[in-house]
Amino acid sequence: MKTDHLKSGIDRRALVSGLAALPVPSGSLLAQTRPQAQLQAPAAQDEPLPSWKDGPAKHAILDFVRDTTDQASPKFVPVEERIATFDQDGTLWVEHPIYTQVVYCLDRVPSVVAEKPELKEREPFKTVLSGDRDAIAKLSLDDLEAILSATLTGMPVDEFEAEASQWLATAKHPRWNRFYTDLAYQPMLEVLHYLRDNAYKTYIVTGGGQDFVRTYAQRIYGIPPEQVVGTMGGTKFGYDNNGKPFLTKEPKLLLNDDHAGKPEGIHLMIGRRPYAAFGNSTGDQQMLEYTGAGDGARLMMLVLHDDAEREYAYGPAQGLPNTRVGTFPQPLFGEAEKNGWTVISMKNDWMRIFAFE
Amino acid sequence: MKTDHLKSGIDRRALVSGLAALPVPSGSLLAQTRPQAQLQAPAAQDEPLPSWKDGPAKHAILDFVRDTTDQASPKFVPVEERIATFDQDGTLWVEHPIYTQVVYCLDRVPSVVAEKPELKEREPFKTVLSGDRDAIAKLSLDDLEAILSATLTGMPVDEFEAEASQWLATAKHPRWNRFYTDLAYQPMLEVLHYLRDNAYKTYIVTGGGQDFVRTYAQRIYGIPPEQVVGTMGGTKFGYDNNGKPFLTKEPKLLLNDDHAGKPEGIHLMIGRRPYAAFGNSTGDQQMLEYTGAGDGARLMMLVLHDDAEREYAYGPAQGLPNTRVGTFPQPLFGEAEKNGWTVISMKNDWMRIFAFE
Repeated sequence: MKTDHLKSGIDRRALVSGLAALPVPSGSLLAQTRPQAQLQAPAAQDEPLPSWKDGPAKHAILDFVRDTTDQASPKFVPVEERIATFDQDGTLWVEHPIYTQVVYCLDRVPSVVAEKPELKEREPFKTVLSGDRDAIAKLSLDDLEAILSATLTGMPVDEFEAEASQWLATAKHPRWNRFYTDLAYQPMLEVLHYLRDNAYKTYIVTGGGQDFVRTYAQRIYGIPPEQVVGTMGGTKFGYDNNGKPFLTKEPKLLLNDDHAGKPEGIHLMIGRRPYAAFGNSTGDQQMLEYTGAGDGARLMMLVLHDDAEREYAYGPAQGLPNTRVGTFPQPLFGEAEKNGWTVISMKNDWMRIFAFE
Repeated sequence: MKTDHLKSGIDRRALVSGLAALPVPSGSLLAQTRPQAQLQAPAAQDEPLPSWKDGPAKHAILDFVRDTTDQASPKFVPVEERIATFDQDGTLWVEHPIYTQVVYCLDRVPSVVAEKPELKEREPFKTVLSGDRDAIAKLSLDDLEAILSATLTGMPVDEFEAEASQWLATAKHPRWNRFYTDLAYQPMLEVLHYLRDNAYKTYIVTGGGQDFVRTYAQRIYGIPPEQVVGTMGGTKFGYDNNGKPFLTKEPKLLLNDDHAGKPEGIHLMIGRRPYAAFGNSTGDQQMLEYTGAGDGARLMMLVLHDDAEREYAYGPAQGLPNTRVGTFPQPLFGEAEKNGWTVISMKNDWMRIFAFE
């Protein structure tokens, strides 16, 4: 299968450095399915943003909502134009040591090989099956694309959704030993709810696969499938043996929803410029620029991971350790200062990171 | 500019036969801009579907809404899953003698040539400028694609939207001498409102250009840009001389949202299977099949243009005159009977066609 065009919006260099930290394969598909915790958000009548410390980040959000929802404000925004977009990995949930979707793809390899035994002795599947982390970390970009293609495409849409849902119900993050879906940031869940309580339509705009994120976005973030903008692959309409129509996921990239692809994806899927945009890395810069280029009040925010104790610390902005997964370099910090974007310090602005704390 | 991949979802054979009926170029861009009439829909408390005659088509709609919104019904559908999709050309508004978007493209040729004088003596632009209907009707498919590409791509997204809006505010349909946007079908506007009053999210799923239809869908149909699924072209993110970011429409086809492309577009943009789908031609068959393949109550309807007096009569189903613009062949009629889809007779089911009657 030709996979040149399947990139899934992930910075592929990032994969290589992040993979070494993984337990692979996790075998979690064999574990028992359990119900997942629902993260709770505050009711509308409560004080907004209870997990946020009083400070410039919290005030930027409160001021923006006040200015754009007060009919007497010169910056009032009509309800139908209230669009807010959120990057996912590193902005709404944990992205270290490596993107959750990549863990999924690697975990899926044994199942794919079980269905296609001829892959067992073929690279890169053989290396993934070996569980040799060092060897996996050395896989080439073409190898990684072959893994993404084999695990994310070629199956009916419904089958993919069922497989991804099953995985999410069992796989756990190695550091916290918790479901990945428990690792959404409580302060960001509060922002989502607060904006929705004020008639904002909240969208995810992610470099991750659109169909993957859709499988859990409603449950975790309260965001329905039609409000998930992600890296988009083609599907193919066809009929089964009984004449029943179905869609198959194709290894054809329609849009890499990262960097410049984010505003392009926003135009494609939403057709409006957001009033608020949240990100955490270079892949979000163009989305924030595009949002900020609109008239009136606009809110642009970047999450800085500066809390190694409660989550992770990486930049390399502000002298934080470097990373290739969710890079926040110093020039992006400079852009934020220049353009009036607010940088959220996980350490200083968030009273708690996760609902389970 | 290479235009192989720009097709705009229009059956190109249809263009050739329909073009002969057109006044080209209309020169309507020179006319004065006037406010357009807003089509009125009934308030929620009124009797639903007042422009529909009592009969099987009206009852199919009423029964579907009753069954899917009554909590006590075994066919009850949760609010968040209530999705209804509507083809546009020939289903929501007039598509004869030729698609409105094609009229727009031909009308735009003089402006494009004014900006690029080198095109004046070059085909196919020279022929379009000549106003010779017979010659225009004989343009090749490649010629027509060159016209679509030159008039629909290459400009900033905002500029395209402004141009299309200006055109819609001035251009008129030759038969009724009314704005194209006045030619929405009043009974279908009532269906849109009735479904929305019952918490259905209404989408347009059109073979026409997504960005073109978005320019008027909110005003005419009450459908916001993010609920318009159409033939999708790529955009390119960039910066102007002042460093301000903007998007340019590219001659790159992402999805031809017609025939099998309709369910593919629905999955891409909505990520859910509709509970109701409305169309009028072969291009809608797969959307109705995909809708009908779901569990529970599903509503599939096809508009049959059998009213030459008040609108147009074409099929060739049921002995109506043949056409290549919005073809409804007898086999599609057979599919409707076999699958339990309801065929709407414009003549017998609709008391009036337009709000202005």
